[in-house]
Amino acid sequence: MDLTHFDSEGRARMVDVSEKAETARFALAKGRVRMETGTWERIKSGGIEKGDVLAVAQVAGIMAAKRTSALIPMCHPLAITSAKLDFALEEPGIVEIGATVKVTGKTGVEMEALTAVSVAALTIYDMCKAIDKTMVMSDIRLMEKAGGKSGHFRRNPEAQE
Amino acid sequence: MDLTHFDSEGRARMVDVSEKAETARFALAKGRVRMETGTWERIKSGGIEKGDVLAVAQVAGIMAAKRTSALIPMCHPLAITSAKLDFALEEPGIVEIGATVKVTGKTGVEMEALTAVSVAALTIYDMCKAIDKTMVMSDIRLMEKAGGKSGHFRRNPEAQE
Amino acid sequence: MDLTHFDSEGRARMVDVSEKAETARFALAKGRVRMETGTWERIKSGGIEKGDVLAVAQVAGIMAAKRTSALIPMCHPLAITSAKLDFALEEPGIVEIGATVKVTGKTGVEMEALTAVSVAALTIYDMCKAIDKTMVMSDIRLMEKAGGKSGHFRRNPEAQE
Amino acid sequence: MDLTHFDSEGRARMVDVSEKAETARFALAKGRVRMETGTWERIKSGGIEKGDVLAVAQVAGIMAAKRTSALIPMCHPLAITSAKLDFALEEPGIVEIGATVKVTGKTGVEMEALTAVSVAALTIYDMCKAIDKTMVMSDIRLMEKAGGKSGHFRRNPEAQE
Amino acid sequence: MDLTHFDSEGRARMVDVSEKAETARFALAKGRVRMETGTWERIKSGGIEKGDVLAVAQVAGIMAAKRTSALIPMCHPLAITSAKLDFALEEPGIVEIGATVKVTGKTGVEMEALTAVSVAALTIYDMCKAIDKTMVMSDIRLMEKAGGKSGHFRRNPEAQE
Amino acid sequence: MDLTHFDSEGRARMVDVSEKAETARFALAKGRVRMETGTWERIKSGGIEKGDVLAVAQVAGIMAAKRTSALIPMCHPLAITSAKLDFALEEPGIVEIGATVKVTGKTGVEMEALTAVSVAALTIYDMCKAIDKTMVMSDIRLMEKAGGKSGHFRRNPEAQE
Repeated sequence: MDLTHFDSEGRARMVDVSEKAETARFALAKGRVRMETGTWERIKSGGIEKGDVLAVAQVAGIMAAKRTSALIPMCHPLAITSAKLDFALEEPGIVEIGATVKVTGKTGVEMEALTAVSVAALTIYDMCKAIDKTMVMSDIRLMEKAGGKSGHFRRNPEAQE
Repeated sequence: MDLTHFDSEGRARMVDVSEKAETARFALAKGRVRMETGTWERIKSGGIEKGDVLAVAQVAGIMAAKRTSALIPMCHPLAITSAKLDFALEEPGIVEIGATVKVTGKTGVEMEALTAVSVAALTIYDMCKAIDKTMVMSDIRLMEKAGGKSGHFRRNPEAQE
Repeated sequence: MDLTHFDSEGRARMVDVSEKAETARFALAKGRVRMETGTWERIKSGGIEKGDVLAVAQVAGIMAAKRTSALIPMCHPLAITSAKLDFALEEPGIVEIGATVKVTGKTGVEMEALTAVSVAALTIYDMCKAIDKTMVMSDIRLMEKAGGKSGHFRRNPEAQE
Repeated sequence: MDLTHFDSEGRARMVDVSEKAETARFALAKGRVRMETGTWERIKSGGIEKGDVLAVAQVAGIMAAKRTSALIPMCHPLAITSAKLDFALEEPGIVEIGATVKVTGKTGVEMEALTAVSVAALTIYDMCKAIDKTMVMSDIRLMEKAGGKSGHFRRNPEAQE
Repeated sequence: MDLTHFDSEGRARMVDVSEKAETARFALAKGRVRMETGTWERIKSGGIEKGDVLAVAQVAGIMAAKRTSALIPMCHPLAITSAKLDFALEEPGIVEIGATVKVTGKTGVEMEALTAVSVAALTIYDMCKAIDKTMVMSDIRLMEKAGGKSGHFRRNPEAQE
Repeated sequence: MDLTHFDSEGRARMVDVSEKAETARFALAKGRVRMETGTWERIKSGGIEKGDVLAVAQVAGIMAAKRTSALIPMCHPLAITSAKLDFALEEPGIVEIGATVKVTGKTGVEMEALTAVSVAALTIYDMCKAIDKTMVMSDIRLMEKAGGKSGHFRRNPEAQE
């Protein structure tokens, strides 16, 4: 199989999807921000009481999903029909981020979902960096995708992350 | 210490840096894309022979560094004076990304460096996803930063990533 | 009825329009810039003779209509098929702005029309602020919208503005 | 006094501020969204309990302040050093929006403050339009500005809005 | 025939394409950068050996194709399905640039192809300007376009360029 | 002398200008759009009487100057202090475009001036393409630049264009 973003001379190009059918597609991506427990507790209480880091990260992630094709050079522009971000703070020191994106189009939206997770993670970092510079953004990965000719993809949950 | 992005009512704001001095600042961030060995070999040979995934990722990362304040809601706009991305393919299955950004300004450029790494990683994912959907973007973190009142930060190399 | 931009946990999201049909839609929005009579006369004559504030405002409004989904966080990206701005200078001291936007899509274009009016108004302010800082942008409102399941909306002309 | 955005032939241009000194500047703008009392109550309770229209509007306003020169054709690009949005829900049916922007630069930031108010107002409209299409954005105006050669401006509070 | 971008009062507008059918369309544009032979040789060898001016210009051109409607005021937003840039260095001192863009849409993509060529040319200029300030970007023109009601257009090769 | 946009491994980077002094800089670029005489006459009369292609092109060029660093990958972001576009219709069939840009900064503004000319030319093309598809954009070149260490550059008027 070929790296489809390269033509026969090895130069980059936007893959030609002109002949592809428009189908309903969705993608789910996830990622984590690992941080000091004190930072994590501040985000957690802030989300409930007053300052809401996650509300800002959520807006940033949704806006980034819409801007994906302007950031990733070979990505096709897509008029996404849905973008949703979720956060889980179950394990101390870890903010888990999930992004679901949908479209009716000729290509998938995994880049949109991954970009939403990445920018939400960067926003969390930005808003907490005054108290914690050692945060790490990790495990940004595609969990599931559906629609289109390549069929349903579901990440093996036992796979090493 | 406070989460500086929230005012006394807990609402988000852009931190007021009006009174800060303009100083020379730099930041170095790193991150990794983990992938199947076959994908990694394709990138590696492509970089030398013909199709160059890393050349595209590098351009994407530099352009993203310039767009950081448009992506991260509370980030200050900064006229960066230097942006540089490096890639290392030493360990099979791992592309290591490094980004160095400089500015003479009132705030630091760690978000610019982290954004450059993230978007370069997303670009690598995008260009290889036809052959490998299980790639993971990880360990995106600040390594070093200098300039400004908060002083020199250097990540403890022994710290868990 | 629900505030559709919030999910069941109260977090913001882009409303899922995946299942909606693509229909022809249009929206008409209006707004006003109130200013000193002297400023208004300058704009009026300028529009005919030489400097044309309204020509610049018109371009700005059309370009803003295309950028709506990048400005308004929960707005869906839409490939609009028509954007038109009109100005009326009938009442001394008042520039009336009208914007009509069309699309064939899954959601309406009222935000595009309102954004076009707002940015045209801001542009008029910007171009005249050297001679008049007291201008006020007002009565920015949806006049009419058609297409889609929610049916035809026409603003009651007797309604308080 | 001249409409400074036009040259001697009447064509639009970006005013030449090359010779101006860099000074500390700030601007305060205000505006209102008028709506049905039921909508207003939903926003008010949402702001306290769960769904937070104003949190999203605030992020949108701050991001718009940074993008002002990309929206308003003759506006100079400025690296703003502070942006803050406030909302007051004192009078039933009215959301009052205030935006304060600061910069150290060669031109003022009134357009940035006015743009922040306008986009925050548009975002409130967008998030509530499913329950209320008759909302009106009004009284968007400059309240105060300081810094630069033109001196301190403070809007006469008795002036008609 | 009329200048379709002006309404009956002579004001600019985005042409209303709402009633047009969606058809498969493509456009091919070309252009040249003329430069000193020494510069040209550096680009040529660089492309093979080490620094690759054309790889950066290619990415810039593809990204610009996607941003066309944000740059050209009356251009319709289009979700392009393919963008491809080619370079030829056959004649010493001349880099020939070609861009092919495709879409399924209501309007053509000639502006996207011409914008891609222009931005690729500007990028070549930018990357070589330290050694050659006299480069000239020329002969940027539409070569061929297909799809839509206006039929197939093919530039007469004998026409003066 | 080196192609400064490449590091020692031949990879592209944004040139490090951190150590450069901020100086007053300006650049003047020019270009031409060649077209059928009938098209040219329409633009000329339109510019005086009613529809004004050049007014739209002028706004587009000024806005593009501000967006240069987002289009050209290795360009530094610069807060330009002046942008001015002029058009001359002296020779039948030729629209001559001139752009002057100023900044106080660490790098020059030739790319901003050249980008303004290119986008103004593309806008003229876009607005007239319904009546003339054979227009050619040519002779886009730097005429003069001042400020910074590299000294005053003035294009030799006898040089082949």
